Amino acid sequence: MTTFDADPVDALTDQDSWNLLGSVALGRLATSVADRPEIFPVNFAVQQHTILLRTAEGTKLLHAMLNEYVAFEADGYNVEEGWSVIVKGRAYVLGASELVEAERGQVLPWTTTVKDRFIRIVPIEISGRRFRFGGESE
Amino acid sequence: MTTFDADPVDALTDQDSWNLLGSVALGRLATSVADRPEIFPVNFAVQQHTILLRTAEGTKLLHAMLNEYVAFEADGYNVEEGWSVIVKGRAYVLGASELVEAERGQVLPWTTTVKDRFIRIVPIEISGRRFRFGGESE
Repeated sequence: MTTFDADPVDALTDQDSWNLLGSVALGRLATSVADRPEIFPVNFAVQQHTILLRTAEGTKLLHAMLNEYVAFEADGYNVEEGWSVIVKGRAYVLGASELVEAERGQVLPWTTTVKDRFIRIVPIEISGRRFRFGGESE
Repeated sequence: MTTFDADPVDALTDQDSWNLLGSVALGRLATSVADRPEIFPVNFAVQQHTILLRTAEGTKLLHAMLNEYVAFEADGYNVEEGWSVIVKGRAYVLGASELVEAERGQVLPWTTTVKDRFIRIVPIEISGRRFRFGGESE
């Protein structure tokens, strides 16, 4: 069994954190609506040190974007170690003028439902940690 | 590439959702502090339809428990399909009288840092979805 709140923990540089984010396609977006947390599993792409998401019109996720502050997390692990990167920032729904740029992000391929809205998270802070798994000390 | 906000989507029964939660050890806890979301990767155990976490004294996670409403997510996937379960509920730090029961939860084994506080999430709602991956429809 692996643990994520494991120690010892190494802090990652911002660049290492971005590189790790770029290595996976699945993350989780946390928002706060009326001071109640919401969490959404999302696929994403990294684009110029922002996080690009895509979602369908009318989704709960899109509604949650009315509160602009978000926290985003992605992680990965194997039997020996794991990592987790958390990005906090502001999210906004992209307007028409940004769609060409967003399409280059290749948050693709998509499933049988067309996703027609892009959301970009512009980071205020990024923090990454690497964990080595092991037994609890006495 | 796999996607989590994929369609088609099947809603899971509560029992299937609990069973899937019980099959993994890693999840993410979202909290809201002063209407700003926080997200934490955590290891956990399912215990009698509650989520049991363990953390060290003085952690940011423990501080975040001052706001009792939380959202918790765990997921899993392979090349063909994925699932995600979200639990919303109230979290509280366990007192001494509950520790024996909590220890049975076996949120173990632990790493080199002793985790000395238990947090229990009592669900208000649970929702699970299963996704089948595929290409975007035209």
